[in-house]
Amino acid sequence: MTTPAQVHITATDAPGQPERTPALEELYGGFASELLVPLWTEIGDLMPPHPRSRALAHTWRWKNLLPLAERAGELVPVGRGGERRAIALANPGLGGAPFATPTLWAAIQYLGPREDAPVHRHTQQAFRFVVEGEGVWTVVDGDPVAMRRGDFLLTPGWRFHGHHNRSDAPMAWLDGLDIPFAHYTGSTFFEFGPDEVEDRGTPELSRSERLWSHPGLTPVSAAGAELSSSPVAAYRWEHTDRALRDQLALEREGYAGVVEPGHAAVRFTNPSTGGDVMPTMRAEFHRLRPGAETAARREVGSSVYQVFDGSGTVRVGESEWTAAHGDLFVVPSWQPLTLATDEGLDLFRFSDTPIFDRLHQSRVHVEGRDR
Amino acid sequence: MTTPAQVHITATDAPGQPERTPALEELYGGFASELLVPLWTEIGDLMPPHPRSRALAHTWRWKNLLPLAERAGELVPVGRGGERRAIALANPGLGGAPFATPTLWAAIQYLGPREDAPVHRHTQQAFRFVVEGEGVWTVVDGDPVAMRRGDFLLTPGWRFHGHHNRSDAPMAWLDGLDIPFAHYTGSTFFEFGPDEVEDRGTPELSRSERLWSHPGLTPVSAAGAELSSSPVAAYRWEHTDRALRDQLALEREGYAGVVEPGHAAVRFTNPSTGGDVMPTMRAEFHRLRPGAETAARREVGSSVYQVFDGSGTVRVGESEWTAAHGDLFVVPSWQPLTLATDEGLDLFRFSDTPIFDRLHQSRVHVEGRDR
Amino acid sequence: MTTPAQVHITATDAPGQPERTPALEELYGGFASELLVPLWTEIGDLMPPHPRSRALAHTWRWKNLLPLAERAGELVPVGRGGERRAIALANPGLGGAPFATPTLWAAIQYLGPREDAPVHRHTQQAFRFVVEGEGVWTVVDGDPVAMRRGDFLLTPGWRFHGHHNRSDAPMAWLDGLDIPFAHYTGSTFFEFGPDEVEDRGTPELSRSERLWSHPGLTPVSAAGAELSSSPVAAYRWEHTDRALRDQLALEREGYAGVVEPGHAAVRFTNPSTGGDVMPTMRAEFHRLRPGAETAARREVGSSVYQVFDGSGTVRVGESEWTAAHGDLFVVPSWQPLTLATDEGLDLFRFSDTPIFDRLHQSRVHVEGRDR
Amino acid sequence: MTTPAQVHITATDAPGQPERTPALEELYGGFASELLVPLWTEIGDLMPPHPRSRALAHTWRWKNLLPLAERAGELVPVGRGGERRAIALANPGLGGAPFATPTLWAAIQYLGPREDAPVHRHTQQAFRFVVEGEGVWTVVDGDPVAMRRGDFLLTPGWRFHGHHNRSDAPMAWLDGLDIPFAHYTGSTFFEFGPDEVEDRGTPELSRSERLWSHPGLTPVSAAGAELSSSPVAAYRWEHTDRALRDQLALEREGYAGVVEPGHAAVRFTNPSTGGDVMPTMRAEFHRLRPGAETAARREVGSSVYQVFDGSGTVRVGESEWTAAHGDLFVVPSWQPLTLATDEGLDLFRFSDTPIFDRLHQSRVHVEGRDR
Repeated sequence: MTTPAQVHITATDAPGQPERTPALEELYGGFASELLVPLWTEIGDLMPPHPRSRALAHTWRWKNLLPLAERAGELVPVGRGGERRAIALANPGLGGAPFATPTLWAAIQYLGPREDAPVHRHTQQAFRFVVEGEGVWTVVDGDPVAMRRGDFLLTPGWRFHGHHNRSDAPMAWLDGLDIPFAHYTGSTFFEFGPDEVEDRGTPELSRSERLWSHPGLTPVSAAGAELSSSPVAAYRWEHTDRALRDQLALEREGYAGVVEPGHAAVRFTNPSTGGDVMPTMRAEFHRLRPGAETAARREVGSSVYQVFDGSGTVRVGESEWTAAHGDLFVVPSWQPLTLATDEGLDLFRFSDTPIFDRLHQSRVHVEGRDR
Repeated sequence: MTTPAQVHITATDAPGQPERTPALEELYGGFASELLVPLWTEIGDLMPPHPRSRALAHTWRWKNLLPLAERAGELVPVGRGGERRAIALANPGLGGAPFATPTLWAAIQYLGPREDAPVHRHTQQAFRFVVEGEGVWTVVDGDPVAMRRGDFLLTPGWRFHGHHNRSDAPMAWLDGLDIPFAHYTGSTFFEFGPDEVEDRGTPELSRSERLWSHPGLTPVSAAGAELSSSPVAAYRWEHTDRALRDQLALEREGYAGVVEPGHAAVRFTNPSTGGDVMPTMRAEFHRLRPGAETAARREVGSSVYQVFDGSGTVRVGESEWTAAHGDLFVVPSWQPLTLATDEGLDLFRFSDTPIFDRLHQSRVHVEGRDR
Repeated sequence: MTTPAQVHITATDAPGQPERTPALEELYGGFASELLVPLWTEIGDLMPPHPRSRALAHTWRWKNLLPLAERAGELVPVGRGGERRAIALANPGLGGAPFATPTLWAAIQYLGPREDAPVHRHTQQAFRFVVEGEGVWTVVDGDPVAMRRGDFLLTPGWRFHGHHNRSDAPMAWLDGLDIPFAHYTGSTFFEFGPDEVEDRGTPELSRSERLWSHPGLTPVSAAGAELSSSPVAAYRWEHTDRALRDQLALEREGYAGVVEPGHAAVRFTNPSTGGDVMPTMRAEFHRLRPGAETAARREVGSSVYQVFDGSGTVRVGESEWTAAHGDLFVVPSWQPLTLATDEGLDLFRFSDTPIFDRLHQSRVHVEGRDR
Repeated sequence: MTTPAQVHITATDAPGQPERTPALEELYGGFASELLVPLWTEIGDLMPPHPRSRALAHTWRWKNLLPLAERAGELVPVGRGGERRAIALANPGLGGAPFATPTLWAAIQYLGPREDAPVHRHTQQAFRFVVEGEGVWTVVDGDPVAMRRGDFLLTPGWRFHGHHNRSDAPMAWLDGLDIPFAHYTGSTFFEFGPDEVEDRGTPELSRSERLWSHPGLTPVSAAGAELSSSPVAAYRWEHTDRALRDQLALEREGYAGVVEPGHAAVRFTNPSTGGDVMPTMRAEFHRLRPGAETAARREVGSSVYQVFDGSGTVRVGESEWTAAHGDLFVVPSWQPLTLATDEGLDLFRFSDTPIFDRLHQSRVHVEGRDR
């Protein structure tokens, strides 16, 4: 049997508390020695009227991140054991843990010229988003996938993957994973693969895209299965950009399509189900035309955004800042978010929404409109 | 109460039959007058060891169909009441009904230069496949959809739709519907719309495509709903062709993707679910490279094929024929199909498979391999 | 290739028809010789404004059926080949076929004292409903299932099953199957089993019930699978009766539960999914308290009812009749049904609704209220 | 913008770490001041080869818990603000938080004679399991539900509920909720209801049971909806007990049904879906016959057990203890569990498994057998 750790119960002045008497103190001592905690002293924290995340709204500046990543490129080798030269956002509300939000991991990964990252696999879901640069191929279960500006790339759970930079320039990109969620819930498996990627080819398109990236077309050899993650290794910028342009054009012509005036958005989806690309993470790309401002929106669950292009003003609850190319920011659960832009704003977003959707815990509130 | 129709029961010599006595004849007379039929005289027909469709394998030649459609263009106007100049395949096993198979309708529709077909809607699911020509726009719920060679176009149930030919040339195409199934099961509703299409625009791409035809991208404004039919009005030939070329190229490079050696195929799918485009019909495009031959394959359910390009030999059960551009043929339930080609063969196919999938009645048998 | 059958096209006077000229007759002759039928002459029949089933509303009287079944018991042996002493309702609108509706089979099955029906299996879904009597066990995949008054018993597709009467009295019951649907769509497989049932035990409850018939409880050894048909072999009258009594009691106490005033109803469901017991058939039990009358209700799809107890007036479209113990009647697609009773009415019902639900073709209309 | 909290990075001696140089320390300082943490120092903790929960296996003794609950009954009133006299298990590995596991809350709730607990609602899912006693009614959305020995009672998220003790004896029971999971992910809403329960009736069965607790029968008025939580307010001991007895009897007779030799188990399920009773929690009842021992079993996710009857030996990883009536214990993620009993053992269990099932993160390993 385990040795009990110490439990402390503080008699509080919160509403509904019993009088602080020696008898009560003795009772609380009895609770502590038996590893028990009363609900009535904790209920205010555990059952607030609406979500109160420990995570804070915060922004990280690309102009500060990139030099640190470059310096790490000089000092920290990439190899077996450390596995990746990835530098994670640590939300100021989460006690120094490398977690952007309670559920989401966001990191800058940096690979020097001609450098390799070794092959491994893990049950955590992962993706890459490329805010700038090119020249790296990520090899997923042996399939080389080119990484280029604007691309969104998937590494679903338990697929072997490594990266290699085939160019003479370094490359930095955004990694997103559900590491905090998997860590917290205790569901993570990990396995080493070969030290080098299995296929050093440099095709324009991955084999997965050649099978799966034709709109509305499914290979008959793979049809009928509802895959838990998307089989598409890369969602290319040219498609994302065109879809967003089309939405704004339809709006100008007087037709439906945008989320709200001046605000186009696409969700990256799993073509075998029509749902989110991965079971625990949603990924979207948002475009605001010059002059647009979004309605304040609250959602259960947390999000991380990265500015791809343009600039704008971000308001999350009481906080407000401007954001430009490469900047990252976090929106905690149920904090209202408003975006505004003068010159136009292109934003990549990922969130933990599928967790809440699948567990029937989602709520969205848009400016007095419930849904 | 209804007046009973006549029921005839014939005492048979089938196995397990009772002796034909006057008493039995009297009993059978009693059955008939009460509108009753015994199982034991009918079981051989009703419960055969495996599916025995009344439909027959058969082919219709494009070179015979097209002149008849052109002649109809001269003699038969298109307008309210008759609604469409569509000429349906009548399977020789189905007693003269305009049914290609027990569940599927296949017709040549023909529209003369500058001609219109009026707007209506019906709960039957419909699609068009364009084996040649262009110049017609089908307008679905007000959205004009260009029809061009190789395109597969959807009109899901209960959407208003009309057609108009904006060119100086006639155009003929394949219509596929689930009319026989809806007729048989008694589920059909119909409603007239305006006499003329609501939007006479001639855009390259429909609005539905501009919203939905970006690979793996879903408009956030419409995300999350599992639509019963695909929201994509047109699946364009350029995508279909490229997907098939990619599959055959992957095969040459040594990777998975084709259905079987030399046989590439894509299924048209609903991006909101990853499943079939419509609840009752599956649509696919198949390409055989020169020299390929498929394994004999039986499926529960019936199919209609149209040759798009190339030529080949078709074997269905005991029947065999050659097929070339525009030719249509029918494969009844559980009849083995083999396709072979010297010069290569491009085939459009539609079937009633979703009915059996959704009702857990599907079976497939490929050359001694069950699945 | 097949030899074309004859296709007849009759130039009609229906609206929207072309003028009957020699040229048109020649064209129609061309159609016929190529096995083609124009839409414009058939559209009125194929695409009516709302469902117009060929099936007619009709009732069969138990007092007429039972003596014929008894007489068949004297004259017709049960054995291999004929398989079952089952006598099917032949809807007067369906040309003498043994089909209660276009999709549903309903028959009286009769087994004499100590008589056996041999084991076989088929992909058609089957059930039994016991309007009176007891003493027969149906053995499904080796599990003996007692048949008693009021019980609803399942034989899902492709399970071996035979029956044996362990008593000295004959027994007659209602068989329901999807034979017409399977026949029409060409999806049926059949196989003989042993001539005698595998287990001649006579337990009160089947093994399937002992595993699955505890409310809200699933055996962990079988949990998690969504079975295509219910694993429960028998739904016992005591449960059905109590559920209906509870609904009417709740209504009296002022709480929700009944379908409409005085009308209680339960649906037999698959505990592994919460949905219908079988993919193609729905089964329900309805109880009207004395003096109740239902709202007129139309549904896409057809139903068969059997009166279990009490009596009442049945109105289907223009037809009206009274119904009492054991009487069967048919409600075709989209015909309005009203039930009324002075003394109370207990009714078993089965329908083809799951077909339309799963294929997104369902519609219900209740007295001016759409849903 | 938020004020950054402090982030500490410790250069480690873990494998794959860079050499500890002044330059590296400066880099790590730069990370810390920008709220960044490298992956390579943390990967061992974040990505272990298999789940390593912070929670520890531990047991709480009923004989120690109950007196503390009784003493709380004397000292701590129940009322608005504190809401419930519930005393939660605090896992010794979780730093003193009132969490039985990272995701699950387990507490003893105690209500004195004639005492009330006020009405509120919250999005957290809740249930009660009654290890002994009776006399309390929990009123869920106005429906009074009797609590009796062996019963499992549901309060799905966002339903108003209060409790009232109608007897002259106190009552203590187990509360299970997903409070830690909801707290961690930031998804919780809470609202006060009336100070007193809406209906002080004391029926034997709740209205929800009268509608829903008939095996395999669904009220037609509510059929067709897949409810996110079970509509059944109480799963009664008599059904649970009989289902377990039936499984062990089937085993003795030589038929399938038990989980493994001598080990019967039922899962409480949602009759509208066949799945788990609530989106985030699974509940089961397990019975071992005298002399039985289970195979060692690991699962992703954590469980809490309470002994209902009998006694046995519990082995979790390296820990082992005996357990008897009322004792509670926790099994962390991926720790192997073995149960053994001489006299027989009845166990209630709940777990967070639905979270992992719905997010495709489940794994189970039974003694060298993977599934």
